Amino acid sequence: MLTTDKIKHAAHVLKEVIRETDMIASHNIKSGVDLYLKTENLQVTGSFKIRGAYYKISQLSDAEKRRGVIACSAGNHAQGVALAATHNGIKSLICLPDVAPISKIEATKRLGADICLVKGVYDDAYNKALELQQVHGYTFIHPFDDDDVIAGQGTIGLEIVKQLPDVDAVVVPVGGGGLISGVAYAIKHLRPSCKVYGVQASGAPSMLNSIHDHKIERLDSVSTIADGIAVKEPGPHTFGYCSEYVDDIVSVTDEEISAAILALIEQHKLVTEGAGAVSVAAVMFDKLPVEGKKVCCLLSGGNIDVNILSRVIERGLLMSGRSALITVELLDKPGQLRDVSATIAEQGGNVVSVHYERANEGSDINGCFLRIQIETRNHEHIAQIRKALADRGFKLV
Amino acid sequence: MLTTDKIKHAAHVLKEVIRETDMIASHNIKSGVDLYLKTENLQVTGSFKIRGAYYKISQLSDAEKRRGVIACSAGNHAQGVALAATHNGIKSLICLPDVAPISKIEATKRLGADICLVKGVYDDAYNKALELQQVHGYTFIHPFDDDDVIAGQGTIGLEIVKQLPDVDAVVVPVGGGGLISGVAYAIKHLRPSCKVYGVQASGAPSMLNSIHDHKIERLDSVSTIADGIAVKEPGPHTFGYCSEYVDDIVSVTDEEISAAILALIEQHKLVTEGAGAVSVAAVMFDKLPVEGKKVCCLLSGGNIDVNILSRVIERGLLMSGRSALITVELLDKPGQLRDVSATIAEQGGNVVSVHYERANEGSDINGCFLRIQIETRNHEHIAQIRKALADRGFKLV
Repeated sequence: MLTTDKIKHAAHVLKEVIRETDMIASHNIKSGVDLYLKTENLQVTGSFKIRGAYYKISQLSDAEKRRGVIACSAGNHAQGVALAATHNGIKSLICLPDVAPISKIEATKRLGADICLVKGVYDDAYNKALELQQVHGYTFIHPFDDDDVIAGQGTIGLEIVKQLPDVDAVVVPVGGGGLISGVAYAIKHLRPSCKVYGVQASGAPSMLNSIHDHKIERLDSVSTIADGIAVKEPGPHTFGYCSEYVDDIVSVTDEEISAAILALIEQHKLVTEGAGAVSVAAVMFDKLPVEGKKVCCLLSGGNIDVNILSRVIERGLLMSGRSALITVELLDKPGQLRDVSATIAEQGGNVVSVHYERANEGSDINGCFLRIQIETRNHEHIAQIRKALADRGFKLV
Repeated sequence: MLTTDKIKHAAHVLKEVIRETDMIASHNIKSGVDLYLKTENLQVTGSFKIRGAYYKISQLSDAEKRRGVIACSAGNHAQGVALAATHNGIKSLICLPDVAPISKIEATKRLGADICLVKGVYDDAYNKALELQQVHGYTFIHPFDDDDVIAGQGTIGLEIVKQLPDVDAVVVPVGGGGLISGVAYAIKHLRPSCKVYGVQASGAPSMLNSIHDHKIERLDSVSTIADGIAVKEPGPHTFGYCSEYVDDIVSVTDEEISAAILALIEQHKLVTEGAGAVSVAAVMFDKLPVEGKKVCCLLSGGNIDVNILSRVIERGLLMSGRSALITVELLDKPGQLRDVSATIAEQGGNVVSVHYERANEGSDINGCFLRIQIETRNHEHIAQIRKALADRGFKLV
């Protein structure tokens, strides 16, 4: 059973391994909101998950510890369990779907876990983990629906109240709901007037649907760049805590998440993964009634695959008008590229790449297309460049 | 004149505006070194420069404050001066070369400075600033060669000794030398046994050359991705302090800097600019005698243009064998792409992009080239994929 004392006990146990992550004031991300960032992306292993996993494993009996632990995860929970087990001198086996990113598999190995790659998706790996658990007697470490795990995550709530005693609202990413259950429990017991909001990805709104329907709902499929919170179904524990302690749950789109990731990089030099940035996305895009309030957004993790990070940066630049892709249809005659380039330069656009293509079907046989990527200031700047090109007689596609 | 008391006074004044940035332990970046990161990239404005600029401006007379300040910078110093001036209620004018990245110009404007874009490069902007200063009587805020500025940067040295009392060595990025002058002065007075090392980019080794030649050397040109430390000539003050208090200065290449930026993103979720990562690059690539030591690397700033960040990530992935570009020459007949893909998949490579090109001059008229970008584990993995393709009879270019 969850109690404030249990969360305080977890905080005491965790002292030996975790960092009390920094709370950083944010002035530029959202005007009209007194915003603070709780930087769990800077936590050991790059996510809050170590808190729950470590506390859970520390509370196992000696017999359980001897048999070792097993978990199923393609991400942060895997790394949390691996490090917690290794630190406690016990064995860990992590089942992962074989489609998991290479970087996450390698990171989990480095932390001392044995890896079992399972053909298929998360559910297949989960079933394999249960099977191995029964055969070998390992202790299964659930990623969220476990009171010890929830108590571990709840220690973040204690730190928030300590670091920001007059906080009005805390905004928390929600996947299975372990993190927000612990944080909301702590916050509502220590500072009942403080609101606690959850944020899910719009492509995986399982807790949101469940809370709105007052019963646990299972999604058939999930799709979001926030893979850390792409969970099909909340657990009975987390559903119960969220029903009781969370004020509201909202959702954000992948575009909004990308913009939040980019804003955190540019304004705060902080790398967050999709799941880690949904709290900031919700505030940036006005999903929550927090104007004029002192708000803490929890950045839950930073383990984003760098290849995906590259793509998110590109997407975010396009969305915010900082980069534009303009296609011009040209006649295939000398001097055209020069005239286009000159026009863009006069407008202060910085060309970063040019792609030149001869006639496609449907276009003039002498025609060609020029695809130009330009670094721009904002959407107005793009409109101004497009207008200047049109004024010079170029056909924009 | 620089004194420990002056640096302590600066720390007192700076309390109202700066953050005492976190010191983060790093376990994975370099084995055999007890490494800590002083995260000035998380400082207000994204760099340490606010410390020196703010202290300098706070010490101006009322008459000087009334006339306003002027500075010349395309980067962090501009933002530091702009914020410091705005915070003190005085006007600031920043001269920038018109080739400066749009993002930095906008950021400086947002902090309340007036901007003067000067045609040409840094030296042109610098001359324009001196000219405007004489005409209008502004106070010129030098980016590094000024004892008040140096005292402000030296406050980082106080924090390092407080946060890591038994530190053996501090590694500091060096451009004009203002940062390392202040830090070395503080460290050597508070903890004389601690080594202080400087790191420059190999494309801009002005302080390194000057120290080794025992006189100030001017470079004709500088070229490095670490634009924040691309300085042609140290100042007389900073050259003097470095000669007296710095144990050694080394240099790192752009490739090494890129690898360090990537490591900091992946291992620590921290965004650093080129200049900010040279300290870590020096430790990663064994430029300094720090094995077995407790070492603090100063991450001086995080203001990297996101477009450049994308390119650095790509470069870093290639360098560390996490991404590979393989070109296969194919006969232009059905099934070839399938066979290549199957071979790569069997070896556990993840294809992220494919570019298919018909015959170039010099190749078979029926030939074509397949350029495949693959996500890989390491250099051995790439060699294994190349071998598998060769074994299947494909010609690798």
